[in-house]
Amino acid sequence: MEELRKAIREVPDFPKPGILFYDITTLLRDRRAFAKTIDLFAERYIGERVDAVVCIEARGFILGAALAYRLGAGFIPIRKPGKLPARTIQENYALEYGTDSIEMHDDPIEKGQQVILVDDLLATGGTAAAACRLVERTGGQILECCFLVELVGLRGRARLGGRPAFSLIQYES
Amino acid sequence: MEELRKAIREVPDFPKPGILFYDITTLLRDRRAFAKTIDLFAERYIGERVDAVVCIEARGFILGAALAYRLGAGFIPIRKPGKLPARTIQENYALEYGTDSIEMHDDPIEKGQQVILVDDLLATGGTAAAACRLVERTGGQILECCFLVELVGLRGRARLGGRPAFSLIQYES
Repeated sequence: MEELRKAIREVPDFPKPGILFYDITTLLRDRRAFAKTIDLFAERYIGERVDAVVCIEARGFILGAALAYRLGAGFIPIRKPGKLPARTIQENYALEYGTDSIEMHDDPIEKGQQVILVDDLLATGGTAAAACRLVERTGGQILECCFLVELVGLRGRARLGGRPAFSLIQYES
Repeated sequence: MEELRKAIREVPDFPKPGILFYDITTLLRDRRAFAKTIDLFAERYIGERVDAVVCIEARGFILGAALAYRLGAGFIPIRKPGKLPARTIQENYALEYGTDSIEMHDDPIEKGQQVILVDDLLATGGTAAAACRLVERTGGQILECCFLVELVGLRGRARLGGRPAFSLIQYES
């Protein structure tokens, strides 16, 4: 895991002053680190029935698509409002100031299907919790929420309401 | 290929009246169709030296990440302005009305590296051509531009300036 941690670039003051941003693009472009990340995720779920990998736009698509391919599962996108072309369902989540929304098509998951939720980062957990609610509204079951990076000091796991969560790399904040 | 074509959903009047949108999310969620898409892409490049797969936000990330993993290559994102945290280079491209821009970090590609460019759709080719210019400005070489769907009536290949292009599924428009 130390190899993966070293492949992440720390960018100060992004997206705004005072924020230290963990830039995973340096990990993704390193063929060994990228493959290892996906293989470590896959090892957890080999032997489980994974019907689909549900991924949050946009960095979540990168890790989730490679994992879905590796597991032989389907890929389901969760996007910002207005991006998905067919009928959608929507959930809101709180931001520091105000709220935001995410959408999923209303038909990709059949009742009882088991899915993994993938995103690059677990911070406060608001987006991930909203994504879980979208999956569960369509009858899907969250096997686990799976992240590359977790900012443990932000206590995102507490927002996930007891749903299982896994992260490869942890930072305090 | 007929199996893949059938997995694509046609959504009329999206994103605006009169446009027929080819919705690939129905293909992506179908585990067999998704795997077959990536395997067909990969077959073209097995045996070539592919240093990285460069992908255009956001649907391009899905196909490109799975392909990069399959090929054991690195993944490099091209994004809308302001999304990438470190130093970037930018290219503009024409829209129906006005222009838009895309960005890539200035450091992921070393001189002489061979990359594949991946996006879901080749339409007029403006975005793909701008993406190729980003890669070439950093010294990279475009092995091929690779798309799931090509709208041949929009003559996107002509905009690619002789760079090789490949698509799995073609529609007139």
